[in-house]
Amino acid sequence: MYLDIGNVLNTSPGITEQTLDRLDDRVAIAHDRIEEGREAEEHGYAALNLPQTVDTDEIRSALEPFGTPEAVLTVGIGGSALGAATISDALADQTDVEAHFLDNVDPEDTAALLDSLPLDETVLNVVSRSGTTAETLANFLVVREAMEDAGVDWTEQTFVTTGDEGNLRNLADKHDLPSLRVPDGVPGRFSALSTVGLACGALQGIDIEGVVEGARSEMDKLSGSLEDSPGYAYGAVAYALAERGALTNAMMPYAESLEYFAEWFAQLWAESLGKEGLGQTPARALGATDQHSQLQLYRAGPRDKLVTLVRPREREDIDIPETDLEGLSYLGGAGLGDLLDAEFEATEASLAAEDRPNIRIEVDAVDAHGIGELMYAMEAATVMYGELAGVSTFTQPAVEWGKKAARGLLGGGEFEEADAVADKREFTIE
Amino acid sequence: MYLDIGNVLNTSPGITEQTLDRLDDRVAIAHDRIEEGREAEEHGYAALNLPQTVDTDEIRSALEPFGTPEAVLTVGIGGSALGAATISDALADQTDVEAHFLDNVDPEDTAALLDSLPLDETVLNVVSRSGTTAETLANFLVVREAMEDAGVDWTEQTFVTTGDEGNLRNLADKHDLPSLRVPDGVPGRFSALSTVGLACGALQGIDIEGVVEGARSEMDKLSGSLEDSPGYAYGAVAYALAERGALTNAMMPYAESLEYFAEWFAQLWAESLGKEGLGQTPARALGATDQHSQLQLYRAGPRDKLVTLVRPREREDIDIPETDLEGLSYLGGAGLGDLLDAEFEATEASLAAEDRPNIRIEVDAVDAHGIGELMYAMEAATVMYGELAGVSTFTQPAVEWGKKAARGLLGGGEFEEADAVADKREFTIE
Repeated sequence: MYLDIGNVLNTSPGITEQTLDRLDDRVAIAHDRIEEGREAEEHGYAALNLPQTVDTDEIRSALEPFGTPEAVLTVGIGGSALGAATISDALADQTDVEAHFLDNVDPEDTAALLDSLPLDETVLNVVSRSGTTAETLANFLVVREAMEDAGVDWTEQTFVTTGDEGNLRNLADKHDLPSLRVPDGVPGRFSALSTVGLACGALQGIDIEGVVEGARSEMDKLSGSLEDSPGYAYGAVAYALAERGALTNAMMPYAESLEYFAEWFAQLWAESLGKEGLGQTPARALGATDQHSQLQLYRAGPRDKLVTLVRPREREDIDIPETDLEGLSYLGGAGLGDLLDAEFEATEASLAAEDRPNIRIEVDAVDAHGIGELMYAMEAATVMYGELAGVSTFTQPAVEWGKKAARGLLGGGEFEEADAVADKREFTIE
Repeated sequence: MYLDIGNVLNTSPGITEQTLDRLDDRVAIAHDRIEEGREAEEHGYAALNLPQTVDTDEIRSALEPFGTPEAVLTVGIGGSALGAATISDALADQTDVEAHFLDNVDPEDTAALLDSLPLDETVLNVVSRSGTTAETLANFLVVREAMEDAGVDWTEQTFVTTGDEGNLRNLADKHDLPSLRVPDGVPGRFSALSTVGLACGALQGIDIEGVVEGARSEMDKLSGSLEDSPGYAYGAVAYALAERGALTNAMMPYAESLEYFAEWFAQLWAESLGKEGLGQTPARALGATDQHSQLQLYRAGPRDKLVTLVRPREREDIDIPETDLEGLSYLGGAGLGDLLDAEFEATEASLAAEDRPNIRIEVDAVDAHGIGELMYAMEAATVMYGELAGVSTFTQPAVEWGKKAARGLLGGGEFEEADAVADKREFTIE
């Protein structure tokens, strides 16, 4: 992975080369702390070891009974879906097996999906470490019933990815379902390079080994200096910019195949760093499309943003046919990809010309190696940012309140949080 | 449409009832200005008249030659695609005609789309007011060639939506293509309720008349007091919150069918209001999924956010089957929609409990009327916010720089902006 931070130097907000030097001293200290955590396989830090601890052979052999299905349906939410979706989306060109994700509890969407799926040729992957995630379990119950109604033996087409105990583990034992274990010490949003993120791709016949190799190449770059580690450098610079007022980070890949990557990053960044009044809000964007949507704001709105531009250096191109349309002859002879690259560079320069900070991230290609590099580097960046900010990177305490409230509202027990819902102050305009 | 601003009163940031009173005086003045603009059909303001000026019969009769195709492919970018996509997405349950949008110049994505489309049964809609939008014209040239290569007579399956002059108008004249006119005075991002946004739905057999009626019902509520107009109230309150530090607006619908609505809103809001250092960054989110991604940040991160929660009051539900899974019996008997609603209310209360401002928007249902209401009200909100902030709501000057740079890079003329690209400062970490 290539990281270019030239356009955050002396921008507004921005950092100086002196700031970089001072940051580098802090990176060295944080790196030592991270290495300690990795060596002890501490909660969270253990995720940074996945490129050497994950066993892709084990994943492939657990799933062997399913052969090559027509479709894989992953039922999971948040970190239980986004990593797998990112890999499947980035590498969709490697497979004919469709990947679907039930990561919401919208009844209309679920009904439409179940209608469209070939249920007798679909492998179901239910993912929840605890086995109690309300959305995931509710969806599982609905899908299971749909399979039964369609005369499909769900026990022949289902596997679970879960912890050592709980509902899903019991279910697997009872029905002799293939199962994968969520590794210890790996929070959901850091689980992309584990069984959680790789099983779907394995069933699709995607090169998950290549993804792990790509991740490993970035792991090998972790070091005590940001000048040697693109992941650490990204995290440290983003942190320094946030301290200087860039409270939003617009993640803008110039590749449709990286659209889910931006979603995945948004969870990783928001849920890990949004604590104690700190954090940086990820805004998901897509180049070149969002030049016609968000660029006006990025260039002329409040100076509260870092824009991160991501692209592959190589991609399959399509020639734009020659044309005699007025004023458009310049397009002929170029490819769509050339146009996209020109727009990428134009956007970058357009922000720089207004002293708006932006960072360029490139991979050689959106292939298995490239997506592995990107994902690992962003995980390392998140951990580094968290160390520098001094927050508890691997927890998500603010999510619990709402879970209790929702459960209470549905009659799942007495929770004072549910009472707070009833006390809502209304001021309605119709 | 129902707007509930109870949860922005006395939050942090927040407003008081006294602020609302003072705001209301300014709304009255801004309303007079907007009414003047509407009466004179001034640029931009004219968009707020579309519910009474658009002619859906004309749209339907222009498209009559195409009958009911298998698919509609809209080639357009930004405002030329997002409005149509929002309506098609929201009302997908009304049709079997697939809607696709080529709104980027990613060669891999375009190739995959062209491979999957039944080109001989696909109607092509090329949308560009000027007829010179590089991305749109490049894509059109590629699609046209693909149709020719497939032995399809593209002139029989193509219509254009464009201005009175330019490349696309000339093309329509030359090949006798059906055409629709982009109305005067309506900027792209405000064109959802015109030919630009409605043609795709018309071909899909969607109830576009219902969309216009829904919009009209919100238009009829425009008045000199925010207490009578949900659209104005939303704009005025969002403006007041931004002034008080809520520089981000997380638009979070609790319905998959409104996912594109959040994208459309993001363009409208960012491009209209992001000027002269002002504006509010739209962050696109989706409930309940993003509770497992963004909620931690929204509840515990920087106090720089307004969260806007949107839902339908009614939807088709799916029962969650009864279960003996441990700790999950509370789900049985509820529907997926009940769970989604409980999560909506829990999220709202969870933010309120931390004094984080949030607004509730509801429509009776995500149907033609409901999406029309939502879109019109958000347009009115944008115009009101722009008036209060004193910005030039209907222009997008910061987008031009990049267009020139990209054109220069591709050899389309001499532009100093392209030279700036070559001067980029690099600081690369590999």
